[in-house]
Amino acid sequence: MSGNTLGSLFSVTNFGESHGPAIGCVIDGCPPGLLLREDDIQLDLDRRRPGTSRHVTQRQEGDQVEILSGVFQGRTTGTPIALLIRNVDQRSKDYAAITDTFRPGHADYTYTKKYGFRDPRGGGRSSARLTAPTVGAGAIAKKWLRENYGVTVRGYMSQLGPITMPFKVWDDVSNNPFFAADMALVPELEAYMDQLRKDGDSVGARIEVVAEGLPAGWGEPVYDRLDADIAHAMMGLNAVKGVEIGAGFASIEQRGSVHGDEITAQGFLTNHAGGVLGGISTGQPILVSLAIKPTSSIRIERQSINSDREPVMVQTLGRHDPCVGIRATPIAEALLAIVLMDHALRHRAQCGEPLTGI
Amino acid sequence: MSGNTLGSLFSVTNFGESHGPAIGCVIDGCPPGLLLREDDIQLDLDRRRPGTSRHVTQRQEGDQVEILSGVFQGRTTGTPIALLIRNVDQRSKDYAAITDTFRPGHADYTYTKKYGFRDPRGGGRSSARLTAPTVGAGAIAKKWLRENYGVTVRGYMSQLGPITMPFKVWDDVSNNPFFAADMALVPELEAYMDQLRKDGDSVGARIEVVAEGLPAGWGEPVYDRLDADIAHAMMGLNAVKGVEIGAGFASIEQRGSVHGDEITAQGFLTNHAGGVLGGISTGQPILVSLAIKPTSSIRIERQSINSDREPVMVQTLGRHDPCVGIRATPIAEALLAIVLMDHALRHRAQCGEPLTGI
Amino acid sequence: MSGNTLGSLFSVTNFGESHGPAIGCVIDGCPPGLLLREDDIQLDLDRRRPGTSRHVTQRQEGDQVEILSGVFQGRTTGTPIALLIRNVDQRSKDYAAITDTFRPGHADYTYTKKYGFRDPRGGGRSSARLTAPTVGAGAIAKKWLRENYGVTVRGYMSQLGPITMPFKVWDDVSNNPFFAADMALVPELEAYMDQLRKDGDSVGARIEVVAEGLPAGWGEPVYDRLDADIAHAMMGLNAVKGVEIGAGFASIEQRGSVHGDEITAQGFLTNHAGGVLGGISTGQPILVSLAIKPTSSIRIERQSINSDREPVMVQTLGRHDPCVGIRATPIAEALLAIVLMDHALRHRAQCGEPLTGI
Amino acid sequence: MSGNTLGSLFSVTNFGESHGPAIGCVIDGCPPGLLLREDDIQLDLDRRRPGTSRHVTQRQEGDQVEILSGVFQGRTTGTPIALLIRNVDQRSKDYAAITDTFRPGHADYTYTKKYGFRDPRGGGRSSARLTAPTVGAGAIAKKWLRENYGVTVRGYMSQLGPITMPFKVWDDVSNNPFFAADMALVPELEAYMDQLRKDGDSVGARIEVVAEGLPAGWGEPVYDRLDADIAHAMMGLNAVKGVEIGAGFASIEQRGSVHGDEITAQGFLTNHAGGVLGGISTGQPILVSLAIKPTSSIRIERQSINSDREPVMVQTLGRHDPCVGIRATPIAEALLAIVLMDHALRHRAQCGEPLTGI
Repeated sequence: MSGNTLGSLFSVTNFGESHGPAIGCVIDGCPPGLLLREDDIQLDLDRRRPGTSRHVTQRQEGDQVEILSGVFQGRTTGTPIALLIRNVDQRSKDYAAITDTFRPGHADYTYTKKYGFRDPRGGGRSSARLTAPTVGAGAIAKKWLRENYGVTVRGYMSQLGPITMPFKVWDDVSNNPFFAADMALVPELEAYMDQLRKDGDSVGARIEVVAEGLPAGWGEPVYDRLDADIAHAMMGLNAVKGVEIGAGFASIEQRGSVHGDEITAQGFLTNHAGGVLGGISTGQPILVSLAIKPTSSIRIERQSINSDREPVMVQTLGRHDPCVGIRATPIAEALLAIVLMDHALRHRAQCGEPLTGI
Repeated sequence: MSGNTLGSLFSVTNFGESHGPAIGCVIDGCPPGLLLREDDIQLDLDRRRPGTSRHVTQRQEGDQVEILSGVFQGRTTGTPIALLIRNVDQRSKDYAAITDTFRPGHADYTYTKKYGFRDPRGGGRSSARLTAPTVGAGAIAKKWLRENYGVTVRGYMSQLGPITMPFKVWDDVSNNPFFAADMALVPELEAYMDQLRKDGDSVGARIEVVAEGLPAGWGEPVYDRLDADIAHAMMGLNAVKGVEIGAGFASIEQRGSVHGDEITAQGFLTNHAGGVLGGISTGQPILVSLAIKPTSSIRIERQSINSDREPVMVQTLGRHDPCVGIRATPIAEALLAIVLMDHALRHRAQCGEPLTGI
Repeated sequence: MSGNTLGSLFSVTNFGESHGPAIGCVIDGCPPGLLLREDDIQLDLDRRRPGTSRHVTQRQEGDQVEILSGVFQGRTTGTPIALLIRNVDQRSKDYAAITDTFRPGHADYTYTKKYGFRDPRGGGRSSARLTAPTVGAGAIAKKWLRENYGVTVRGYMSQLGPITMPFKVWDDVSNNPFFAADMALVPELEAYMDQLRKDGDSVGARIEVVAEGLPAGWGEPVYDRLDADIAHAMMGLNAVKGVEIGAGFASIEQRGSVHGDEITAQGFLTNHAGGVLGGISTGQPILVSLAIKPTSSIRIERQSINSDREPVMVQTLGRHDPCVGIRATPIAEALLAIVLMDHALRHRAQCGEPLTGI
Repeated sequence: MSGNTLGSLFSVTNFGESHGPAIGCVIDGCPPGLLLREDDIQLDLDRRRPGTSRHVTQRQEGDQVEILSGVFQGRTTGTPIALLIRNVDQRSKDYAAITDTFRPGHADYTYTKKYGFRDPRGGGRSSARLTAPTVGAGAIAKKWLRENYGVTVRGYMSQLGPITMPFKVWDDVSNNPFFAADMALVPELEAYMDQLRKDGDSVGARIEVVAEGLPAGWGEPVYDRLDADIAHAMMGLNAVKGVEIGAGFASIEQRGSVHGDEITAQGFLTNHAGGVLGGISTGQPILVSLAIKPTSSIRIERQSINSDREPVMVQTLGRHDPCVGIRATPIAEALLAIVLMDHALRHRAQCGEPLTGI
């Protein structure tokens, strides 16, 4: 089993390099009967597309998705759905200068060590671009979850570098390029980003993803717990260095008399568990928080070596993100949706339809 | 694919309930020729066994492992290795009172919702006891990694509730029941635990796990990245609510000019990446940090409901851990070893022998 | 993914060597709520146990199964079910003479080539004994299929060496050690076997397995077709050299105007398809036929070499089967049941409940 | 795990419907460094393409393959290789008349039962066309096996309906559209086919596939034996109703004193095993034989029903194969190559490099 497939019953096999002919994925296990058109998928792709604000990469990625299979007369057939996105804007010359150096923080070094050589164009297969097919697959999962179980999956940015961004209202999230849940924060964020760009540097971010409306009972004990699969999917996302569920790292200092969520006939009183107990959904919102590292491609010069082990200084020119976290929200939503759909199907296989919450 | 198997090429299928006849696992994919006896495994099992100090559960778990298959004349044959641990000390009556209530923070509620009923004895399959076979499998993985690649996998506790426990020296770790890397901390920790026990409460912990000596090149890009599989294994561990690799959540506020690890001809200058870049090992130490939640079984009464939805107060009597994190270190080591061995074999399949670091 | 696990949603992981401490399996994915006791499994195990007639191996295999997990108060819990069978009668000295020779037709040679050494006792892991856990798992699958879908899985022997054994009635099958579907054949078969034993030789057999009552719709197109999975399971059975579905090899000479099963409002007119079309069940009986090769362990001397490449003559003394096919029927039934249950669950995952036939 | 992926370490995920926008596959696990261009793949595709003789379908399938990913500067990168084949000749109107009837011998009925509806155009996903991507993947596997291990995979037709076609010489196979291994047979075959076409009927065929030069040691005991995986792949091929390895069904009447292949210092004396013993390769040629059923689409009218359960007579007009077996040879070769490559990689993972034969 090679590592380019996510999920088991509902699975996504991803292919493509950022500057090869095309990227895409094959989605297997989507039940038949779901209404699906390119538009349903394109919407989510556009949310993540660079160029939607001055704060993200100005490379025009195109990202027009084509459905190659698995849909007939507007409904999924139950057979594999292949999504294709042609690569159109490659501007290879922005990368020419770095062909034989190892950029700090990038996968250049590790790829060369693993495979013996690498595709240097645009990060090859370690590029953030490869998340586009994932978002496409996630759009399908979100639609299916919503229509079959009333589950919603939404995310927002809760911290940009040193600036905390508390949640205010979901409606604000789609109205600013930061996916901030409070429009009032935007001017400060924009000023910070402009300064960062002038400095030629980058910074990290924290993303929250929330799934609501799911029933209790999804997940498998011991190893493939729902939270384990969520962590797997998220940590597999480019630039993620940490994953928390519920109280997360705050659990360390919490007492059991506080952390354990009490239950009444009306429901749970708290949600430190983050919606998962014993690896299985409780019916409460799934709360996931991610740590996104700062972009590795910056204008500031950094020490590195080339393939002859000679010291060089490396800087990346061209059009890049000073904060890759800015685009992470739709991707994290897609991943959560894919994992939830997989578990919904697995539960349906073993136990029939899930029960509702308390 | 049901969720009781970890790994793909080197896989561990776990079975058993804490108060059923036995627990164990089947390990598939261990290469032939490894010298292996029960003693090799028993050693690691004893490290996690309750009763080794006054700070952990006083239930006598026994935990004598038996190798049922896969070994001939002291060497692995390449065929599946089955490990069996009979359950001997069950003291079911400690659990009688809670048969039909849902203990806050436990999987009682979610199990019932998923399966329709549950095995209430000792937490059934959500018990920490089920980590014993994992530790057994991990002992095999650690041995193989050490003998074939010179890789060491070690862990320690870095925080107990509010008490930070900085690393001082590896040798201290095995000399105290806290797996603290500094003996000088022990009196304070013991005092804190004694108070906790008096309070009838519990607290969380932070565990660090480190793997050293591995080559660059292990891991698969995009989805089954090495860090993704590590997160999956760790978050699948009972009581883990957060996983970090390298700088982890500190990456959020780091600048790219700091976070990206620079490279010289002598090696990397820092290790914010935590040993993984682009999902592949760099050859630097793998640095994993876990957040362990506080024990859910405490003496303090908490609100809950029973299966008739009537409010009840729940408290757990009997012998329990005020901090399950105290036993987590050997388990986390085992999981990291299992994941690394799986990736070593996968890399060997696709690319032949790995290259050394810089 | 190592090769000791059969199935995906309903999976069976087999372990053990014939003369190691024990053999067994871990069954994952069995839905909760199925009534299950050792007796349910022991029954099928006894059907295949040597010593039930003078025509099969006189080694006393014992084969007392123990359920180690996955069952609580007589019902499956939905968690893994581990079956254990201790090895009690090993009579290793019958094998002492052959430790370093490669018996023709056995896996001695291939095992040594693959692993570098082998466990010579009783065929190690290539022994027919390893089918006992499979039969145990199959018993569970048969029970679940019968109780949930009304599916029956039955088999019989249709040819013993040169003697064809046409089907007469199912009731006869369990009344003779040959699993012949016509008691009238038994004297001729016994005479033939007695002569074979005098000759110190062996012969092959043909087994038919039939599944009835299943709905249409089970199976996945393209690769994991129902018939493909059946072929995989059967060809994985020790000693099987050929698998046919429906008309099988007779299809070669059939015309399309004959082979294609016509359909009327009352149902299909024929069943050359053998119950599978396009990889999916039609609702008609699944018809599988297997070719079993003659036993490799015979008293007649045969040429071989030892590990020093010196020519030797090999003969196997002790208690062996002159026709392993005699025990194959319950094993083939078990395999068909396991595959069907896996597909039932997969179909339930993707498409909900199956529809009935025409 | 849905059923559209073949293999585990070297895996092929197939997508597409015959009359959708495109068909293709994603090949995961191909090691890096293999020289690969479209031409390498197109060659094998053209061997199976209809229109290469008057005896196969006159639909112009096009079948121009495009490599979308996984190759850089003419070498595989170790990342997934996506192959795309656009559908250009669809002639839907040949299928218009049959939209709501169930053609005998086709998957129309089973698909509708499974999914609730179906894509009727050209057989949708049950079409033979879907084998094109498999052949593409097989071309890559054949190349890798040849260059890394000196393994050759070749096939030929050994029977067409009632006409047996004994092997004479490999060179003849590529010089006639029947893949016959003896040119002298061609006139008789052509005459037979012409008559079949006049009759508006079809017939089956027998295909032999042979792999030579592989080492001993490939395969996994018990379940995923090499022969089991071969049977799985072959039985998954459209129209296959039977699979034999080595002596196959002739084993039934063979005595053990004949069937067991004797060994001398110079090698095996016979090959009834067909190259596989105990599920592992012996180093001898792998001998596989397939039974292909007659085409279901014929001009002769046959009884069926429509979706309202009314009796109808069905006949297929347009351009079809009177013997799909004629195109099966390159497909069967591709499947054998894919399975062998998967096992080569799995063996390399667990045991390092394989040993040579005797």
